[in-house]
Amino acid sequence: MGGDNAPYAIVKGAEAAWREEIAEPVLVGDEQSIRSLLDAASKIEVVHAPTYVEMREAPSSALRKKRDSSVNKAYELQRAGDVEAVVTAGNSGAAMAFAIFTLGRIQGVERPAIMSFHPNAKGRLSILLDSGGNVDCKPGHLVQFAIMGHVYAKYGMGIESPRVGLLSNGEEETKGNELTREAHALLRGLNINYMGYIEGTDMYNGSTDVVVSDGFVGNVALKLSEGVAEAITTFLKERIGTSFRRKLGYLLLRDVFAELARTVDYSEYGGAPLVGVSGTSIICHGKSNEKAIKNAIAMAKDFAAKKIPEHLSEAMRQYIDSHG
Amino acid sequence: MGGDNAPYAIVKGAEAAWREEIAEPVLVGDEQSIRSLLDAASKIEVVHAPTYVEMREAPSSALRKKRDSSVNKAYELQRAGDVEAVVTAGNSGAAMAFAIFTLGRIQGVERPAIMSFHPNAKGRLSILLDSGGNVDCKPGHLVQFAIMGHVYAKYGMGIESPRVGLLSNGEEETKGNELTREAHALLRGLNINYMGYIEGTDMYNGSTDVVVSDGFVGNVALKLSEGVAEAITTFLKERIGTSFRRKLGYLLLRDVFAELARTVDYSEYGGAPLVGVSGTSIICHGKSNEKAIKNAIAMAKDFAAKKIPEHLSEAMRQYIDSHG
Repeated sequence: MGGDNAPYAIVKGAEAAWREEIAEPVLVGDEQSIRSLLDAASKIEVVHAPTYVEMREAPSSALRKKRDSSVNKAYELQRAGDVEAVVTAGNSGAAMAFAIFTLGRIQGVERPAIMSFHPNAKGRLSILLDSGGNVDCKPGHLVQFAIMGHVYAKYGMGIESPRVGLLSNGEEETKGNELTREAHALLRGLNINYMGYIEGTDMYNGSTDVVVSDGFVGNVALKLSEGVAEAITTFLKERIGTSFRRKLGYLLLRDVFAELARTVDYSEYGGAPLVGVSGTSIICHGKSNEKAIKNAIAMAKDFAAKKIPEHLSEAMRQYIDSHG
Repeated sequence: MGGDNAPYAIVKGAEAAWREEIAEPVLVGDEQSIRSLLDAASKIEVVHAPTYVEMREAPSSALRKKRDSSVNKAYELQRAGDVEAVVTAGNSGAAMAFAIFTLGRIQGVERPAIMSFHPNAKGRLSILLDSGGNVDCKPGHLVQFAIMGHVYAKYGMGIESPRVGLLSNGEEETKGNELTREAHALLRGLNINYMGYIEGTDMYNGSTDVVVSDGFVGNVALKLSEGVAEAITTFLKERIGTSFRRKLGYLLLRDVFAELARTVDYSEYGGAPLVGVSGTSIICHGKSNEKAIKNAIAMAKDFAAKKIPEHLSEAMRQYIDSHG
């Protein structure tokens, strides 16, 4: 029920996932409005939820008053083992709060985080976390983010020894702020491929697989990247239609522009895994369209099949054993 | 003497500024190496400085040991009234330390800041500050940054009522971290056009003239923006040369790509003013080329002529009078 285009985009995305045999989605929310949108031919299961969380509702208030909301109902189905993963485009703070409340955290994880994927110049994806959940972090939280990023890159993306960097204002040891300096010292003692401080440019040149930051910096970074990409594509679009010569040039380069548009389009990547809770959960952009929802369902299916939460549990257990 | 291409790029940039009658530059540094690069025809004054600050030297150590460095010598000339502004591509931390030490701060400014310019989708420039000087800030520092940004946008760029935003992880009042929440409350009491929290996307869509953040977030934002723009231009370049059709398309759109390259090229904007010290000072990118130096000299001339430090003094005086 959540998101700017809900429930329409959610229902249509789920139908597409069902039609293309990506997964067997279960839709959770107001049964009547969902059924009115569902294709008669589709055999998608609908589970009724009497309320839903508004986009601007404070997560703490939702947690108290909206236990019967669509998002919490979905996590309850997951806890009961009726579904293997949850996908939501609604209020992400509330999704995080309910996931922690209903699924619980993996032992050793104090702060579950939101992980986003960013295309880089090497044609691969870099992971950024936390990209929005936790604004005021302690150094130990960044260490947990690094372990979570390592596990996702290794078991989710198949990178043998993921390169993990700490986002900072410079690569030199003298750089960083109070938070990153303490985290940097802790990260050097970790049994992962920690590369030290990295700069914003490293997020996109392909030199790093996992970028670690607090959720405030991470969210600014995420939206800033969208902003730059949007400004550049707007710039190109506005100029291309202005003469016959330019229109012809565009036609000849149409496939290149289409590939660029796909590369910077968040909806190609589906969504952002909520990591550190006991189960697979994908948080989608509020403005998600049908394609984004379909891709998020595919991502949820993939990560659930790869048993990422189980691998993360194991990694956290090892960390606790060796660091107390 | 500072910067990746020094002293060559600095000398050639100064010569270009002299040749094009932008300003009458004075070069400060090792006289012999500067003279060996200077065109015989150019009548640029050279002031000898026996040492210079290395790029990786800690500012605090430079401040103790390098009083006779080129950068401090330049600020001494400015304090004595022999030059109207200083331009440097060297160690920016040391430049800031010496500017504060030798020129002094404007009354009411606790933390001078570095201001960067970012092209936006409206074809104008947005100001970001602090983009690197101060990593751990208090709310009052962000208020001073806002006043400094307001003054530069108004008197430097001629914007009657500059829109000032606080960079955050969302626009809602419930967003922000500890630092921004306190700063937000203070900024609302300020006599400027304060728009509240803005997101990373607003930095590039033209909805804001001045973006305020601490120097850690600002520096990450600055380098991230460069990173995204670089990744996109690399993406386009790599694909364009791969077939006759695409090469032809590129030729027809060559002016559009050239305009894009100019728009995202930092060297077009010259440099970043160091604001809050008693005098005009422009900090350039370490990798500045001749064109960047020339444009930075033009910027220095312009801001010195517009008496920005004097306007800032006046604005700070008013702020102190009304807020104690």
